[in-house]
Amino acid sequence: MTSIKQSKTKRIFFMTQKLMSNPGKTISLKYFVDNLGAAKSTISEDLAQIKNYLEESGEGTLYTLAGKHGGIKFIPRQSSETIANTLSELENRLTDQKRILPGGYLYMSDIVSDPDLLKKVGGIFAGYFINDQPDIVLTIETKGILLAGVTADYLGIPLAIARNNSRVTEGAVISINYISGSSNKIQTMSLPTRAIEKNSRVLLIDDFMKQGGTLKGLKNLTKEFESKVVGKGVLLERGQAQDKLITDYLSFGIINKIDEEYKDIDLRMNLPEKFIRN
Amino acid sequence: MTSIKQSKTKRIFFMTQKLMSNPGKTISLKYFVDNLGAAKSTISEDLAQIKNYLEESGEGTLYTLAGKHGGIKFIPRQSSETIANTLSELENRLTDQKRILPGGYLYMSDIVSDPDLLKKVGGIFAGYFINDQPDIVLTIETKGILLAGVTADYLGIPLAIARNNSRVTEGAVISINYISGSSNKIQTMSLPTRAIEKNSRVLLIDDFMKQGGTLKGLKNLTKEFESKVVGKGVLLERGQAQDKLITDYLSFGIINKIDEEYKDIDLRMNLPEKFIRN
Repeated sequence: MTSIKQSKTKRIFFMTQKLMSNPGKTISLKYFVDNLGAAKSTISEDLAQIKNYLEESGEGTLYTLAGKHGGIKFIPRQSSETIANTLSELENRLTDQKRILPGGYLYMSDIVSDPDLLKKVGGIFAGYFINDQPDIVLTIETKGILLAGVTADYLGIPLAIARNNSRVTEGAVISINYISGSSNKIQTMSLPTRAIEKNSRVLLIDDFMKQGGTLKGLKNLTKEFESKVVGKGVLLERGQAQDKLITDYLSFGIINKIDEEYKDIDLRMNLPEKFIRN
Repeated sequence: MTSIKQSKTKRIFFMTQKLMSNPGKTISLKYFVDNLGAAKSTISEDLAQIKNYLEESGEGTLYTLAGKHGGIKFIPRQSSETIANTLSELENRLTDQKRILPGGYLYMSDIVSDPDLLKKVGGIFAGYFINDQPDIVLTIETKGILLAGVTADYLGIPLAIARNNSRVTEGAVISINYISGSSNKIQTMSLPTRAIEKNSRVLLIDDFMKQGGTLKGLKNLTKEFESKVVGKGVLLERGQAQDKLITDYLSFGIINKIDEEYKDIDLRMNLPEKFIRN
C-alpha cells in the first residue's frame, strides 16, 4: 500500500480496473483512499465521473452502499441498446442452419461454452436479478455451468453445482428425484450438504428448459436446504408456456420448431425491455 | 460511435474498461480512435500509460500486435507477488481441517465453483500458457469446467467440454476409452466432431489429477481431432511424480497425504516462480 498522491489519470485507471475486474464486489472508499493517497472527497468525485462514463457506455453502473461495510460496486446493468445487441448476436448464431441435428435438435455446445457470449448473457441476468438479492446461484451439470458461473461472478456471489450422481469426493449430499423433460425419465440430482447455507436466497440458472422439470427439481432441492428460490433464468426454452411445470422465469428466447427437412429454425427472441427492471 | 473529442479522463476510463472487460481480445487502435475522437498518437500515448499502471499493479500487461489485424490486448501476466498471494489464499482455504471427508478425501466443490478464486487461478494459467499460443481450451465435465472457462476467457479463445456420455443434442461425437485414476475403471469420454477444428493448438485444463489418466485421455482425444496439445494445467495433483502417466504439466500444489484420524492435510504449494516464463 502506498499513500503517495497519484495523478488523476492513475486514479481513474486504478478504480476502473479494480471495479471492472471485480464485478459485484463491494470495494470500500478507504481502499481507494489508502492506495491512491487522495482525499475521500476526491475519490468520491472520481467515482461519480466513472459512474457517468459507465452509464453512457451502456455496460452497467456503480452502486454505492452506505454504512460500516459500505463502499462501491460495479453491476452490469446494461442499457436497452446493449441488451438488444446481445439478443441479436445470439439470434444470428442460433439460426444458422448448420446447427440442425438429426431428430430436430439444435447444436448448442459451442454457445454454452463460449466465454465471450456467456459474459454478455450472464451480465444481463446479473443486472436483472440483482433486485432479488440472491446469495448464491444454483445450477446442475453440465451445460449450464459456465453461464451460471459468469452470472454468479457478476453478482459477486458463489455458485453451487448439483450433480446427477453423487461422488465420494463431495462428502454428505442431499439427493432428490426429478423428471427431466429432455430425457423424460426419473433422474436423481444431489448437492453436498455444505453447498448452500440455511435461509439462503437462491438464483437458479440453466442453459435450456423444455417443460421445466429440471428447474422444478432444483427448486425442490433448494427447499431441502431450508432456502428459497428468488429468481430463475434460462438461456433458451422450448415449447408453449401452458405446458410448463414452473412459472416466473426469464429466458432469452423460445424455440418454437426446428424443421429438419426444410432446414428451418423457428426461434423467437424476447424483447430487450423484458430484461430491464426499474 | 461518436467522434467528439473526449477528455483524457474519459479516454483512460474507456480504454481501461474495454481492455479489462475483454481479456485476451485484440482491440484495434482504430476502434479507440473512432470512439474517442482522438489522434492515433494520443491513443498510443494513453495506452502506454495504461500499460505502465497495469504492470505496476501486478495484475497483467498489454500486448501490442502489429499488422492488419493488429491492435492491443490485455493479458493477465501477473507479478510474482500477485501470484504468491493467490497461492497462499488457495493454501489457506485448502488446509482447513473441515475439508477432510471420510475416506481421506478433500472437499473441494466450493473451491472449484468459486468464480472469484478461479479468476485468479485462471489468470495465472493464461499468463503462463499464452506463450504456447493455444487456439482452444479443452476440459472434461464437471469440476474443471469453470476453471477451464475463465482460463479460456483470459486467453480470448473458445472452450470445448468433453463428456462422459454423449447426448443426442450434441450430434456426431468422437469417443475414446480411458482409465480414470480416481475411479480406477474404464470410462468413455466424447466430444462433438465440430468442437475442435483440425490442426488446433489445444490447452488442457482440469481441476484435479491423480495419475493423469484423464489428461492422457484428453490428449488422445485431441489426436483424434488431428490437433496437438500445447499445454496442460491442473489446479491440484495428488501423489508422486514418478507414478504419473503424463509429464510437462503445471499444477498449483501437491496433496501428499490426508490424515483422517489426525486431521492433517499435507499439502505443498508450488513456488510463484514456477508460474512465470520469460
